[in-house]
Amino acid sequence: MDSLEPFDLVLFGATGDLSMRKLLPALYRRHCAGQLPDDGRIIATARREMDTQGFLEQVYQALAERLDAAELEDAHWQSFVERVQFLQADAEDAHSFEALRAALTGRERCCRVFYLAVAPGHFVNICEHLNAQGLVTPASRVVLEKPLGHDLASARAISERIGAIFPEDSIYRIDHYLGKETVQNLIALRFGNMLFEPLWRRDWVRDVQISVSEQVGVDGRAGFYDRTGALRDMVQNHLLQLLCIIAMEPPTSIAADAVRDEKLKVLRALNPLSGKYALKNTVRGQYRAGAIAGQPVAGYLDEPEVAGDSHTETFVAIRAELANWRWAGVPFYLRTGKRLQERAAEIVVNFRDVPHSIFDVTYGAGRPNRLVIKLQPDEGVRLHMMAKSPGDRMHLRPVSLNLDFAEAFQQRQADAYERLLMDVLRGRLTLFMRRDELYAAWQWIEPILAAWQEAGDPPKPYTAGTWGPAASSALLGREESSWHEES
Amino acid sequence: MDSLEPFDLVLFGATGDLSMRKLLPALYRRHCAGQLPDDGRIIATARREMDTQGFLEQVYQALAERLDAAELEDAHWQSFVERVQFLQADAEDAHSFEALRAALTGRERCCRVFYLAVAPGHFVNICEHLNAQGLVTPASRVVLEKPLGHDLASARAISERIGAIFPEDSIYRIDHYLGKETVQNLIALRFGNMLFEPLWRRDWVRDVQISVSEQVGVDGRAGFYDRTGALRDMVQNHLLQLLCIIAMEPPTSIAADAVRDEKLKVLRALNPLSGKYALKNTVRGQYRAGAIAGQPVAGYLDEPEVAGDSHTETFVAIRAELANWRWAGVPFYLRTGKRLQERAAEIVVNFRDVPHSIFDVTYGAGRPNRLVIKLQPDEGVRLHMMAKSPGDRMHLRPVSLNLDFAEAFQQRQADAYERLLMDVLRGRLTLFMRRDELYAAWQWIEPILAAWQEAGDPPKPYTAGTWGPAASSALLGREESSWHEES
Repeated sequence: MDSLEPFDLVLFGATGDLSMRKLLPALYRRHCAGQLPDDGRIIATARREMDTQGFLEQVYQALAERLDAAELEDAHWQSFVERVQFLQADAEDAHSFEALRAALTGRERCCRVFYLAVAPGHFVNICEHLNAQGLVTPASRVVLEKPLGHDLASARAISERIGAIFPEDSIYRIDHYLGKETVQNLIALRFGNMLFEPLWRRDWVRDVQISVSEQVGVDGRAGFYDRTGALRDMVQNHLLQLLCIIAMEPPTSIAADAVRDEKLKVLRALNPLSGKYALKNTVRGQYRAGAIAGQPVAGYLDEPEVAGDSHTETFVAIRAELANWRWAGVPFYLRTGKRLQERAAEIVVNFRDVPHSIFDVTYGAGRPNRLVIKLQPDEGVRLHMMAKSPGDRMHLRPVSLNLDFAEAFQQRQADAYERLLMDVLRGRLTLFMRRDELYAAWQWIEPILAAWQEAGDPPKPYTAGTWGPAASSALLGREESSWHEES
Repeated sequence: MDSLEPFDLVLFGATGDLSMRKLLPALYRRHCAGQLPDDGRIIATARREMDTQGFLEQVYQALAERLDAAELEDAHWQSFVERVQFLQADAEDAHSFEALRAALTGRERCCRVFYLAVAPGHFVNICEHLNAQGLVTPASRVVLEKPLGHDLASARAISERIGAIFPEDSIYRIDHYLGKETVQNLIALRFGNMLFEPLWRRDWVRDVQISVSEQVGVDGRAGFYDRTGALRDMVQNHLLQLLCIIAMEPPTSIAADAVRDEKLKVLRALNPLSGKYALKNTVRGQYRAGAIAGQPVAGYLDEPEVAGDSHTETFVAIRAELANWRWAGVPFYLRTGKRLQERAAEIVVNFRDVPHSIFDVTYGAGRPNRLVIKLQPDEGVRLHMMAKSPGDRMHLRPVSLNLDFAEAFQQRQADAYERLLMDVLRGRLTLFMRRDELYAAWQWIEPILAAWQEAGDPPKPYTAGTWGPAASSALLGREESSWHEES
């Protein structure tokens, strides 16, 4: 472990959900692990007036809900407290940034991180206030959470205004799926072994499935969601980022731009989906009343803040294809939705079946090989294959191999935000999206949105607690495939 | 399990080492498992006069040394005894076969197996006596143990005389390595999965190593061994058979001739090694006094029945190549010897290294992938690869995967002879060598023997308890490879 430089981490939205649930626990854990330098300060800000003591009480409570008692031992907490101060700062009020300026004065050469854990509508304002106060030093970095725009035009507008203040290599656009240990293990498996390279292409892969299913509905953010929908909320960022990691060519190094150049090539290789072609290769759904884990839940149109005739999709399935030599003709099926049967995120690589089985079917037929990368609720990589079962006959049985090894190494798997926060402090951009990736993703998403708009028909209804509309299964059924559903 | 037809198994050499150590325990175990039909008889024969009672006492003692008490429970033994009778029969005495004829009379339609667990010098005589007595029915099979000749001419002579009595598809030439569970799992892995096919070729495989090392010397059979040597004793049969399983193209089925046709193609694709080319690509060794497991042992030239100036090799290492599209240019290293450091038989497939490592070496370098198939002393298949170790860094660590699964299935692994005996009774020839395979193996072996003969120099000495002469390592060192030695 290289040691970190002294830093000032300025956290906007410090009393918000993400800060309390993820960011402050992540910082606290790394503090306890001795990975933060003594001179690393956390300056928490929020719109409300509050003193540091009051803020710390909230933090302690949030930690107590998530960490076990040993982690909260007094010596750790007391030393953590010394790093933290709270300052009021309101994005709508330039004057409120003066206290921040005072707090940062004299530390211009420190690594300075502005983490904007606030609604994206405030991104530009905050950056401009920081700039006006002269707080953007050469050693400054800004961390942005999704959504980074509502469409290509708004993504460009935000990026250009922030880009006028921060150079691109100081901007950290977070997609927390990339911080997951298993996603990084996938990179290690693909490029640290020769075994996967010949298999990882159209000749041997039948299809790839990327599925992120949620059980939750739109609780608490129905208004935002109704203007957004599943395609913008999940596909444009998380699912496309995972697709990039699966499909990219070997980069020349794991340096940020080497990796991001390859991811960009994947996004640009996506066959455009527009007009009839978009309608044929996508399925929109919207949940109706149903039950999740035995509890009745309301339909989407009955949620507060949702118009009774809303056409917003709460489910989307897409058959995508990449126009390049490695992947041409291989379906990449993307699926995400709310109020589905399970909470699960996984990538499945289905390999082609053997062209001809030499084993008499009465001796037990084979099943195609499959690599399953689970990201939620638990992480893990498993390879499903066939082996001979012991005995006199050539009887094959399916077996699965754990390629995850986290268990073998007996280490706690860090939360994705822990990893990503440390990368920000270390100045490592590899796991963050570059501006041109963001644009390329929107460029692919927009014609789909336009096709839906033009068609004008409502999304297909599905009952809450199911796997989405039947058309989602039919999308794969056309090619005699089906979604990987283990349970 | 299909049930077996009634059978008469006539075991020649029933009091010999192989019968007592392997064949009779194998039959007894399958009897206990209820896999032998009630009307399945074992007619044990040997040169000596003895009655059935006396023979059974020997058998019981042999079983008691090998099986646990539960297996020897009285009910099992008593019912086994009913299958067995002993008859004296001497290969040199035609009259001694009359009792056998009497015993088989009236059971001409039974499956009839003649298992020749005797010195190969008796094979032809026994078959001719059987024929003269009219005992070779259409339902008869003959089982032959190695060595099947001393060179191509003698192998042809034996095969042609036996072939005049038994049709080829009634001849079961045993190579017990093919009866090993792991060798068959290798076939299942290769042809029951799509994963291995693209990897299994010159583009991705750096080299293949087939190594069978023994700690024993020539105890009790020095006279035979001194006329034979390691190349004839081990390479011509076991090592080449393993090479066939590794290198063969996918057969159209697991029917005997489909598999044997493919194995034959491998043997015929071996680049001939003769003259200087043979000397360059082989290493002969002969052990000198040393120590095995801490105990001093004599040198080969001091063994009884060995001439003081013997040039017989007790060790051989060969660099072979296959002249076909799949394997051209890939070294197949074969190694076998007596008085080596360990008793081990294994096949190692070394894959090529990644062409370019994207992981900074300070983060931990990679190691090439490797598949290790262990046949002795324990069986198992392991795949060695790299994975990310948990943590913030892209640090790779070597890990190994168990592809054997016997453990997972929690079944006792049957001895190779059990499997092969059952295959004989079921009439399955897949795991037995065909006559043309035998010839092809000798055709490849003979020019090597001739080149050694012509060179006239003695084998390189090595100390008992080592891994053979240094030239064996140098053979691989030329290509910057080395023998896989785990311990």
